[in-house]
Amino acid sequence: MIYLDNAATTGKKPAEVIKAVVKELSAPSNPGRSSHKRALESMNRIYEARELLAKLFKSDKPENFILTPNATYALNFAIKGLLKEGDHVITTAMEHNSVIRPLAALTEVSVTVLKGDDYGIIKPEDVSEAIKPETALIIINHSSNVNGIIQRAEEISKAAAEKNVPVLLDASQTAGSVGIDSKFFAMIAFPGHKGLYGPQGTGGLYISPGVTLKTVIEGGTGSDSVNTGNPVFLPDRFESGTLNCPGVAGLAEGLRFVLKEGVESILSKEHSLLKTAYEGLSSIKNIKISSPPDISSLSGLISFNINGTESQNVSEILSREYNIATRPGYHCAYPAHLRLGTEKSGSVRVSLSCFNTGDEIKKFLWAIRKIAHPFCAAFA
Amino acid sequence: MIYLDNAATTGKKPAEVIKAVVKELSAPSNPGRSSHKRALESMNRIYEARELLAKLFKSDKPENFILTPNATYALNFAIKGLLKEGDHVITTAMEHNSVIRPLAALTEVSVTVLKGDDYGIIKPEDVSEAIKPETALIIINHSSNVNGIIQRAEEISKAAAEKNVPVLLDASQTAGSVGIDSKFFAMIAFPGHKGLYGPQGTGGLYISPGVTLKTVIEGGTGSDSVNTGNPVFLPDRFESGTLNCPGVAGLAEGLRFVLKEGVESILSKEHSLLKTAYEGLSSIKNIKISSPPDISSLSGLISFNINGTESQNVSEILSREYNIATRPGYHCAYPAHLRLGTEKSGSVRVSLSCFNTGDEIKKFLWAIRKIAHPFCAAFA
Repeated sequence: MIYLDNAATTGKKPAEVIKAVVKELSAPSNPGRSSHKRALESMNRIYEARELLAKLFKSDKPENFILTPNATYALNFAIKGLLKEGDHVITTAMEHNSVIRPLAALTEVSVTVLKGDDYGIIKPEDVSEAIKPETALIIINHSSNVNGIIQRAEEISKAAAEKNVPVLLDASQTAGSVGIDSKFFAMIAFPGHKGLYGPQGTGGLYISPGVTLKTVIEGGTGSDSVNTGNPVFLPDRFESGTLNCPGVAGLAEGLRFVLKEGVESILSKEHSLLKTAYEGLSSIKNIKISSPPDISSLSGLISFNINGTESQNVSEILSREYNIATRPGYHCAYPAHLRLGTEKSGSVRVSLSCFNTGDEIKKFLWAIRKIAHPFCAAFA
Repeated sequence: MIYLDNAATTGKKPAEVIKAVVKELSAPSNPGRSSHKRALESMNRIYEARELLAKLFKSDKPENFILTPNATYALNFAIKGLLKEGDHVITTAMEHNSVIRPLAALTEVSVTVLKGDDYGIIKPEDVSEAIKPETALIIINHSSNVNGIIQRAEEISKAAAEKNVPVLLDASQTAGSVGIDSKFFAMIAFPGHKGLYGPQGTGGLYISPGVTLKTVIEGGTGSDSVNTGNPVFLPDRFESGTLNCPGVAGLAEGLRFVLKEGVESILSKEHSLLKTAYEGLSSIKNIKISSPPDISSLSGLISFNINGTESQNVSEILSREYNIATRPGYHCAYPAHLRLGTEKSGSVRVSLSCFNTGDEIKKFLWAIRKIAHPFCAAFA
């Protein structure tokens, strides 16, 4: 299979990731609950994952990286943990349902949605201008999972800092492939199973020192057990119940892989393939691409449509006839499609990982040519 | 290592569980997000897990089994999803922090805690008598993770049904080793990584038809994407963000293992070992057991103390000198220790799985004899 659905989950995990999961599963224990050897060893592996996260995000506070089941939980913890009645939030039209839905659930909070340019890119000054006295949080999707645009997050954060408003960065599509310095952000939510090459069931939230959050989920933490509230200290406060230890052990190896390959080098490889894909698609008549042509402004994905063909149908033909995996539809981000004018049938998304090859992109383009112009392709 | 900490997580997973996790990790995809072959295959495996859960809990509604990161999240979803301001809750003194802490967080809800007998066992009539007009939920820890007592959950549920009060069963220590019929309960929360022999990072909540819950976590579900609220239908309503697919694939194999071995036969094996452990401990002077002597009234665990020695120290010596894993302290359930009179230093818990052996129990008892009476043991 040619797997071009890496924005949903990276389709190949490094061998070390699988090995670490198997090792943990072969001698399971519950870290932080007991003090026997196996539990202590497991606890060390969990801590290693935090240290690697801290390294990736340029932080010296491993304990401020809380481990969550995925990025969605991290975003819920951040949004609901911080906001209270009467607060105002600024966000973008390019957010995912993992931000839109928790915000919509907080009916007592008001929201300003910045539309940005035709591709959804917002300017730092748009954010500055939208800040009100009651603005309590700015939420930025670092890179859209619909069209791949990367927002100027650090500049936005600097603009917000001038008015003392914290920024929550949704790094779902950038953690591991775009450099992120934690010093710019109050909170960073990230999945473990996309650009960090870890197993599904992992993710996390960086909470900078000074940010205090209410809990959304409470339960046993193996610490402060006499207290009827969750502990106040990190990471225990936000890690209730048994952790996904095999997943986290795998995530640690995914992080090691990313740090070894290098974030810049991963994106650079993806960009080179993306350029081929973009140019190839642009050369096909009847194709409309929802991503801007400046590849350097994108994370590892683009979306497109073939005029007159539903995105669902294109992806289905790609899968059935060419064994190529893409993702059609709305990508859990309908407002982004409204912004891009693809609200009728969504779009076909092609998303890469560092394991994709030029040959795969060539085959993909060949398939798209055949789908878009079956007659002409017969002569090719 | 002799692993007697199975109530924290089963210390051995069947080979098929690990194999299924590796298979899923070797060809990852995101089910429910795309329609390509790999995603559809993964979706089928997830659905299989639900079907096996339905079979175990004697239900014909697989879609009513929602998959959660662990039992703690399931309990939070149930408690916070159902209760509203002014509601009254009945629960027991033997609850875990995964129930105590979410309840404590709901300051607008009142709680009656039933103390039960000296071991914490409550009578169905205690529940009936405690029901008030505003009682909205009864929460029962099916088996205490501190002393192993099994509550008469079905009878309690029948008593509650007479007054139309729903019962939430916390099956953290019983799912897989004590038969549970879903028809008696409004909701059942369970971990995947204990008696179901699945990987950590898995668990679930059974929600019976007719029970409607608010969401606690919202996000992308791959369904109903145009809507700014989570879908109303199950299981999507409560499964936001990417599932732990390798974990769930492993859980399915754990469930197959449990169904093949048979729930009754698993408990019967554990009971036979527990009897040896109980009798052995009872014969040692200076040992106080917190669990009742009727082994048939217990799930696979007992707790004890050696007079004059902190539980932490006993577990530490067991680990360091004998390579035996137990769990000391409060087991995230301090009120249960208050009830049992072990609030000073907690207790040492010995918890079994179907993989433990008589020889392991013999070695454990020998170690305890040496720790409790080092001088006499030298002559043994």
